[in-house]
Amino acid sequence: MFIREMTRREIVDLLAASRFGRLACTKDNQPYVVPINLAYAEDHLYSFSMPGQKIDWMRANPQVCVQVDEFSGHREWRSAIAYGVYEELTDTPQWKREREHAWSLLHDRPNWWEPGGLKPGPQPVVRDPTHIFYRVALKTLTGRQALEGEEISRRPAREKH
Amino acid sequence: MFIREMTRREIVDLLAASRFGRLACTKDNQPYVVPINLAYAEDHLYSFSMPGQKIDWMRANPQVCVQVDEFSGHREWRSAIAYGVYEELTDTPQWKREREHAWSLLHDRPNWWEPGGLKPGPQPVVRDPTHIFYRVALKTLTGRQALEGEEISRRPAREKH
Repeated sequence: MFIREMTRREIVDLLAASRFGRLACTKDNQPYVVPINLAYAEDHLYSFSMPGQKIDWMRANPQVCVQVDEFSGHREWRSAIAYGVYEELTDTPQWKREREHAWSLLHDRPNWWEPGGLKPGPQPVVRDPTHIFYRVALKTLTGRQALEGEEISRRPAREKH
Repeated sequence: MFIREMTRREIVDLLAASRFGRLACTKDNQPYVVPINLAYAEDHLYSFSMPGQKIDWMRANPQVCVQVDEFSGHREWRSAIAYGVYEELTDTPQWKREREHAWSLLHDRPNWWEPGGLKPGPQPVVRDPTHIFYRVALKTLTGRQALEGEEISRRPAREKH
């Protein structure tokens, strides 16, 4: 097995293929991490949530970190981390287009409402004021990939992410 | 589908059954989240890592958050969050017993060294100074479970974790 750094292109591809990840936010030096459904489009990750702690914390401090990974085979995996900034897609004309875009990306996913909240009623969530749509504007991306086989080039011993 | 809060006993059982989770730490209001291997014992989560960003950040700010989850069935899942404090099991006589305990919990896991670092050499990791053993002293635990079926009691709409 060997571990290599992923390229930005590979990281974006992994984000685009991901339906699920973990989002960390922080308040007063206390981190908080939760699973989220997500969809990638044009340097943003789109998601939604019930009101609650993570929305409260991201409103107060928009610096967030999202982690996604993929396991394939016995010892092969890819893990990517995206640092970004929380942007709430409020239910106002200003964000109408982005909310509808988020809805179009997220609504046809199996179990797409989990674990973002309770199963919505007959009204689509985009019209449900108890759901909050948001996106993360991506800034710095890092990723590592573990592959079976011989190590081609020795990686530095220091962890890079 | 309905969602319920998990009891502390259920959360501890989920932590004890988990081999893998996500750890979030924070520096200067910037969160960071990474996958870790872990093992639960007596109100602590044990793990190890190569030197790097998360160790640097946890040394500077020991407040961490660990998230584990389990999916079973189409829409059923459990997710638990543990807030805790980072404690480094330094390679000194003071922490010898805890390091050996961590080793005993972690060493027989399939792929237990992933993604904590590169594959170790013939020396066991407990003797490898490039690996850092640590544990998280657990403080507050929260957990939610989604179950198929009718909602028995309506949960409050506000997200609890």
